[in-house]
Amino acid sequence: MATERPPMTDRVAITSVVRMGSGPARTDQDLVAAEVPLSVDVRHPAWPEVIKLGLLMRTPGDDDDLVRGLLLSEGFIRTATDVESVTIDMGADGATVAIITLAADVPRPAGAERGGATATSACGLCGRLAMRAVEHGGRPPDVPRFDAATIARIPVSLRNGQTVFAETGGLHAAALVGADGQPTIVREDVGRHNAVDKVVGAALVAGRLPASTDLLAVSGRVAYEIVQKAAAAGVAGIVAVGAPSSLAVEAARAAGLTLIGFARDGRFNIYTGHERVQ
Amino acid sequence: MATERPPMTDRVAITSVVRMGSGPARTDQDLVAAEVPLSVDVRHPAWPEVIKLGLLMRTPGDDDDLVRGLLLSEGFIRTATDVESVTIDMGADGATVAIITLAADVPRPAGAERGGATATSACGLCGRLAMRAVEHGGRPPDVPRFDAATIARIPVSLRNGQTVFAETGGLHAAALVGADGQPTIVREDVGRHNAVDKVVGAALVAGRLPASTDLLAVSGRVAYEIVQKAAAAGVAGIVAVGAPSSLAVEAARAAGLTLIGFARDGRFNIYTGHERVQ
Repeated sequence: MATERPPMTDRVAITSVVRMGSGPARTDQDLVAAEVPLSVDVRHPAWPEVIKLGLLMRTPGDDDDLVRGLLLSEGFIRTATDVESVTIDMGADGATVAIITLAADVPRPAGAERGGATATSACGLCGRLAMRAVEHGGRPPDVPRFDAATIARIPVSLRNGQTVFAETGGLHAAALVGADGQPTIVREDVGRHNAVDKVVGAALVAGRLPASTDLLAVSGRVAYEIVQKAAAAGVAGIVAVGAPSSLAVEAARAAGLTLIGFARDGRFNIYTGHERVQ
Repeated sequence: MATERPPMTDRVAITSVVRMGSGPARTDQDLVAAEVPLSVDVRHPAWPEVIKLGLLMRTPGDDDDLVRGLLLSEGFIRTATDVESVTIDMGADGATVAIITLAADVPRPAGAERGGATATSACGLCGRLAMRAVEHGGRPPDVPRFDAATIARIPVSLRNGQTVFAETGGLHAAALVGADGQPTIVREDVGRHNAVDKVVGAALVAGRLPASTDLLAVSGRVAYEIVQKAAAAGVAGIVAVGAPSSLAVEAARAAGLTLIGFARDGRFNIYTGHERVQ
């Protein structure tokens, strides 16, 4: 399958810069990663009010995928058909707003009025948070085998799949990667969680979830939130260029995910689910 | 002033790991950065209800500084005396909760019930968000001069001030740095925004805000949120090891902050406020 790369459109902005180094100061122009707010409103035929999920600070592009992925990982939806429509529009105040209309048979999630699992929950117990990752997805029925040499090559494939990072150095990347090590969906964003939501949303629309024979590759570190999103997508595991946090390891173990960190320079560490790696 | 370094306590967790590289797989133990949820409740003598700011996923330690810094950058408080008390306690569900009691004369901020400026606002306009950074702090009255060679050394000083990063590779750092390039307050966290909040909170308690002759140094990239917090602390500028986003540049310009990115290997880029650098 060919890698689907995002086009480079309004994902960058031009800014003036003074470059300081060993030589004299030099005034120049520079590209920076675009960060633009997006309001997210969720509607349902049977709900009296619009649920405002808040303001995402995101890099424009793939907004449709972004909000679908967000809704999936936040537990609002479970399947692609749970979303009736997504409209990206200009609000009265000039801000971009994503209006999601859910299908009539979608139940209202608990605590939905506050939006955002980590922003709403007061459970606070790491163990319970870890278990929540299981509810979202859980261990895939089969145990795919991933080749260690293939995994070692994923960070380079991920970097090659990025279009804007090379220009700005400012974007995180996430990708869905098959057992052959090839990224099939690559997305970028100033926010790592947004990049993952874009990948998950695109995979949902493409009918590829649960992605139980795929890995989710991310360009940075892995905290709890990323594991939660990976579990919602039903992937077999996560390959991160950076370090995992303690709660990420706990949640990955609880969800039956393989968690790989520090994947760089041909080496990597397996924190959970090493039985999937041969 | 001597650099105040955080002690290494419950900031790391031990986990088992399988190390994969050119040789055979090796089972080992590894340290990962601790990520543990903290509920934040805000109380006020005159408010009928507790405002739940939600669940912070943070690295334990300096929780008192963390919540004070968060309250300042979110507009709940403006001075150290606006906080009557901070209690870090165990909630009924076993989660750690920070209970902040505000002083009786602190007005209730608009939109406070939702918590989090980026989570609450529906203004959505980048320009208005940028202007909000000005309201928080604004240009310091004097224009301190920072030496280019001193700025170039800040990333190394920042790294040397970190205690947990070397062990886990998993923590962001933030520091308050004087015109001599020496970090005076260094804090670490799995979340970059948390590390900044910890620094700002510690500076607030120490009576050092507005820190108009200091720079805020951060270990990673700079998005809008970091500029907002820097403006709230009244620093002269930001020195980041990574790239700035477009909205970070806009907000720094609006707030009159010097914004420096890609500070590494003796070089750096000045995006705004270059008049402070000589």
